[in-house]
Amino acid sequence: MIVLGVDPGLSLTGWGLVQTGSGDNVALLNYGCIKTKPSQKLGERLKEVHNCLRTVIQRYTPEILAIEELFFSKEARTVAAVCQARGVILLSAALENLPVCEYNPRHVKIALTGYGSADKNQIQQMVKTFLKLTEIPKPDDAADALAIAICHAHTSRSPLNIR
Amino acid sequence: MIVLGVDPGLSLTGWGLVQTGSGDNVALLNYGCIKTKPSQKLGERLKEVHNCLRTVIQRYTPEILAIEELFFSKEARTVAAVCQARGVILLSAALENLPVCEYNPRHVKIALTGYGSADKNQIQQMVKTFLKLTEIPKPDDAADALAIAICHAHTSRSPLNIR
Repeated sequence: MIVLGVDPGLSLTGWGLVQTGSGDNVALLNYGCIKTKPSQKLGERLKEVHNCLRTVIQRYTPEILAIEELFFSKEARTVAAVCQARGVILLSAALENLPVCEYNPRHVKIALTGYGSADKNQIQQMVKTFLKLTEIPKPDDAADALAIAICHAHTSRSPLNIR
Repeated sequence: MIVLGVDPGLSLTGWGLVQTGSGDNVALLNYGCIKTKPSQKLGERLKEVHNCLRTVIQRYTPEILAIEELFFSKEARTVAAVCQARGVILLSAALENLPVCEYNPRHVKIALTGYGSADKNQIQQMVKTFLKLTEIPKPDDAADALAIAICHAHTSRSPLNIR
């Protein structure tokens, strides 16, 4: 199964693709980051997110898009920007008939580290370990997207046995 | 000039089309409401908003889409839902190369009633008057969308002489 993880944002949307294998094995397929400039019009920025993500979906034909659930602790203006990008990402998936699975941020941390309060670095180290990489993927948004993809790969295999 | 006003929402997105004439004259072309059900998946709801709005844009080929600026006083969950729909609406416009103009809610009130603290009923009465209708358009979301369209029609004609 190919899983596409996405970490939505207006300036930076991270994406990461993993292929599941036997057991908890996951292999990296590709990852990247969609960058848009604040100097562009909002509609153009959203179009860039949509077009780039659609290209990724069409090229790799993943079976599922995994994304974090919304949380509301951030500053309102940030939430608004993220949510506009998130709406476009969910639309891009729907237009390609790609199912979406949402994960609580705490669930992602537990799935990767076994610890619900793990910090960013611990998550990134586990992304590196699971994908047998020599370095942590950059930027952070791409590593976060891969973390969500790995979370889905593990959770969908053994939903009652989350690490 | 044909102006498309949009009042974004996840459950209800209102839209209204007006045609500008001489002076402050504006004529109603059409209006409606895109309804989506909470029982549908979020991506499907956003796809419905996108597809319906795209059909309206392609059918009437407006020259501008007018929409209210974001404001952040509402409950966070409502803001998140509205923003996801808003992102899709701005994307739909961008995909059709339709420019977008954003208006402060207070600006819309002043443009229609001359009074920045006008209530919903006063706005709706002015929508009815400007468009020479016998009744207030229903639902409220469609009337709000027509108010934004009328606001743009008047503001773009005489930006220094807002009523």
